[in-house]
Formats: sequence, C-alpha cells, structure tokens
Amino acid sequence: MTRLPMYLDNVQGSIWLTEDEKENLKISYRIHQVLFEETSPFQHVMVVDSHTFGRMLVLDGIVQTTTLDGFIYNEMISHMPLSIHPNPRHVLIIGGGDCGAAQEAVKYESVEQVDLVEIDEAVVRACKAFMPEISGGPDSDPRIHFHYCDGVEFAKRYKNKYDVVIVDSSDPIGPAVQLFETSFYQSLYDILKDDGLMVCQSQSPILHQDIMVQSYKRISGLFPHVKMYTAVVPTYPGGLWSFTIGSKREIPKPEQIRFDKQAKYVNEGVLRSAFALPAFVEKLLGRAQ
Amino acid sequence: MTRLPMYLDNVQGSIWLTEDEKENLKISYRIHQVLFEETSPFQHVMVVDSHTFGRMLVLDGIVQTTTLDGFIYNEMISHMPLSIHPNPRHVLIIGGGDCGAAQEAVKYESVEQVDLVEIDEAVVRACKAFMPEISGGPDSDPRIHFHYCDGVEFAKRYKNKYDVVIVDSSDPIGPAVQLFETSFYQSLYDILKDDGLMVCQSQSPILHQDIMVQSYKRISGLFPHVKMYTAVVPTYPGGLWSFTIGSKREIPKPEQIRFDKQAKYVNEGVLRSAFALPAFVEKLLGRAQ
Repeated sequence: MTRLPMYLDNVQGSIWLTEDEKENLKISYRIHQVLFEETSPFQHVMVVDSHTFGRMLVLDGIVQTTTLDGFIYNEMISHMPLSIHPNPRHVLIIGGGDCGAAQEAVKYESVEQVDLVEIDEAVVRACKAFMPEISGGPDSDPRIHFHYCDGVEFAKRYKNKYDVVIVDSSDPIGPAVQLFETSFYQSLYDILKDDGLMVCQSQSPILHQDIMVQSYKRISGLFPHVKMYTAVVPTYPGGLWSFTIGSKREIPKPEQIRFDKQAKYVNEGVLRSAFALPAFVEKLLGRAQ
Repeated sequence: MTRLPMYLDNVQGSIWLTEDEKENLKISYRIHQVLFEETSPFQHVMVVDSHTFGRMLVLDGIVQTTTLDGFIYNEMISHMPLSIHPNPRHVLIIGGGDCGAAQEAVKYESVEQVDLVEIDEAVVRACKAFMPEISGGPDSDPRIHFHYCDGVEFAKRYKNKYDVVIVDSSDPIGPAVQLFETSFYQSLYDILKDDGLMVCQSQSPILHQDIMVQSYKRISGLFPHVKMYTAVVPTYPGGLWSFTIGSKREIPKPEQIRFDKQAKYVNEGVLRSAFALPAFVEKLLGRAQ
C-alpha cells in the first residue's frame, strides 16, 4: 500500500483530510487525489483534489484556499483597495502565495509592479503547477515580482514606496501573529506613499471578534481613515470574513466606487455593498472607538 | 455508561456530533451536553450545547440552526419581506419551527397575526424550552398562531389571505422537496393578497446552483416581480445563502428600503446591500431568463 501523506487517512478505501487543529470542530474532506506534497523549511505543503471543493491548498493540514471559492476572498481583498485608489502603480502583497491577489492586481493597467512577498517558495510553486485557476498557471505577468522572504522584515526595508499594500495573511497563529501587531501596521504606514492605503484580512466577525476588533483598533490608531468591509468565505469556519482598510487619504463613499474589470465574484454593486456592516459588527467597532 | 443519543459518539471521553449525510464532507462538533432528545413521528429531534456554536437544533443528525449565528438567517428571511411590504398585517411562515422568523415578524406593529405552519410540534417545543435566544422562550406573542400540519396542504386551504409569506424550509431532501415545486409556489401566489409577496430560502449559490436557479426560474414564471438577495450563513456548508422574493407588486429599489427595528444582524444598510449579487450569480440568473 502506498504511503499516505501526513494529515490524510484511508477510511474504508476513501481518502480523507481532517482539519483537527480546532479542539471543538473537525471538518473532513473526501479527497480524490494528492497532486503535490512537500515538507518545505516552513511547513507541510499539499495540493489535493477534493470531491466537494475542487482543488485545495493545504498547509500543515489546514485548508487555505480552494478552486471552488478561493476567488471570492482573492477578489475581495484586492479589488477593493485597487478600485479605491485612483491610480495604483506600485502594489505590495504580503503573503498571498497562491498568487490569486496578484492575478487580480495585474488586471489594472495603471499597475506597473506587484511585489509579492511570500515566505515559502514551495507554496507558490505548488499553486502555479496545480491551481492555475487561482494562480494563473506557471507563467506570470512580468509585472509580478516574487520575493521569498519574511513579510515583516520586507516591510521594514522601504519608506514611501507603494500605493497599495495587501496583507493576505494566514490566521494569527505561529509566525503570522506578527502580521497582526501594531509595529507591523506601522511599517505598512511608513512603506506607503502619502496617498496610499493598505488592507488586511481581519478574521471572522463570528468566531474571532477579539482579533477583528483589535486589528481595527490598531489600524485606527495609525491611519487617519479606516473602514471595515466584509465578504463571505464559504470554506472557512465562521463563513463571514472581515477586511480592514487603513488609508492616508479619505476613503471614497461606497457610491463613488467604480469597477470595470472582469471578475467572478466582484462587480461594482458588490464592492459598494461590502461596507454595509451587520448591526452587531457596528456595535463591536463602536465600542472599540 | 449512559446511552448516547443517535448521531453522537463518545471519542476518548468527548462527545461529538458528526454530520455525515454528505458523502464527501463531514463536520464534527464537540458537544457539552444533550438538552433535548425525542423521536417524533417525523424525525429525530435534539437540542445540544456545543463548544463552538452554542446551542444547536439537530434534526435527523443535521444541524439546522445555532444560537451563535441563527439570528443572521432568521433576520434576513423575515425583515427583508416585512420591510418591503408597506403594511404587513397577516404573515404566514411555512417551516420555521425554531420560531426565530416569527419572533422577528412580531416586531412590526402593523402585524396582526402570524400563522406558523410547522409539521413537527416537537421542534417548536424543543426550541421554546432550550433555545430561548432564538424562539423567544416558552411564552409567545399572542399574535403567533401555531399550526402543526403539512405546509403544502396548508397553503392550498386559502386564497387571498396573507400580505407576506415566508418559506423557511429545510434542504430539498425528503418531504421538503415539495416546498421547491412549482405547484407549491402557485399555492403561495394564490394565498397572497393582490399586493402580497413571498420569500423563500433558495439554497447556496456555491454548492446548490441548480436548485437556486430552478427556484428563481419557477418563481419568475409565476410572479411579475422577482428579486434575489444573499446573506452569509456561517454554519451551513456553502456559507453564502440565497433568498428569492416573488411579489405581486413592484419591489422597491434598495435605496427605498427603510428599517427601524432592533436587530442583531440586520440594519438598513445590510438590507439594501443584500441585493448586490455576486457577478457569477448574476450570470447564472441571466442565463436562466
């Protein structure tokens, strides 16, 4: 019998991936096939083909993105800041090794360069080879530059360089904790041009209210203009997801947002409506101010 | 050792509920305690207290609603039609045995009577006793009238009687299949007054596109005015959920919608923005027309 990769089990002839990092909730996905497996210096990296969610990127046994619904997250984290900025030329993406946000960013003609800072080269390689629907496949737009290094360190290197920064981090566990710290947000403030803006994923309003409120508070302490928006992320427990924008100049009103790109999830109406926060989220943020 | 109810397993001293009706996806919830268990003439009914999602109503082993996020669904399925109708007086709810939609409906002073048609009295009894956050507890507003009978049969009994009908059905499996049939929508058309409107949950745009499109098509074939809206339902796989309105008179533009009730999820902005459909949903519905 062939050896099964870590995190997978053979149950009566079917292969299952069980996310069991959460003490009180386990989700098991039936898998057709393992397409990529490698233990990188940073983590265990897999791409598997699942029955329900299509191909899935799995890091240390946790599903990160799927071809069924990954486009929602990637479009929402990238098109919002890129539509808000009137002329985005230099874009920094921290994390985002699936290359999905970068693929969306190069839809903007004004964008001259996208610096994608991903600590783990194996993630990019796996997604380019086996998740072309998200990554765009092996050949990238030449405007995308890959930097395989620590995002926190990279953000300290420059000042006044980018129009838009997108923080596509994983959950605040292990090394990613730093991507939720005030000192990191300060680096982002400094690396942005005087009219620049950043966006970060700020976790689930249902399951991670503390982190969401903390991100909002920390970013509000640094940036003069801060706004939260939400989107649905079907394959993450907690489903509803929050994103926080910190901007050096005024954020346009929803009805002023324009969008004319081709996308699967995002259109002008979706971008405008994403700022309508649920009553309980408004309450949580109100208390934070 | 005490006998564990159906659908629960003891794994090394912890109690787990595993939804395994889906061939390719299993979700397991760690349970503190079973609060209610009964095998009714229709199904196995449980209320359990879970670690992650609070109390959960479980029918035949499938989680139906939770105290953590059930308010989102209940508010979205009820406040949208009740805000759109200028003067809702008579409301019919088909399904909705958790009483959550009925609790929202009686927030409207204009509402004189809510007929709640739930086939299974045990569901109402369980939720009234053990999920007061959703059901409102044992004492109901006297305007809520309970009818323990088949919703399809009930809908055939009257003509021209209701201002608003809310179809809070379970998934189209087993008996609930009928709640997605054209003949049922025809009964709803007939039971509505000349300026009435109905809303039904029309499944996940991610995981059940066929059913969503079919509901939209069937309702469009009967009602002159049809609109879809979406909401997030974190504890349902597929996360994003669709609702379809069929109305006898014109549905107001989103910006005309007013809302002044107290709610946890819904506010005016949320109601207005819910009509902004994702690009791929617009495409699916466009093809259906």
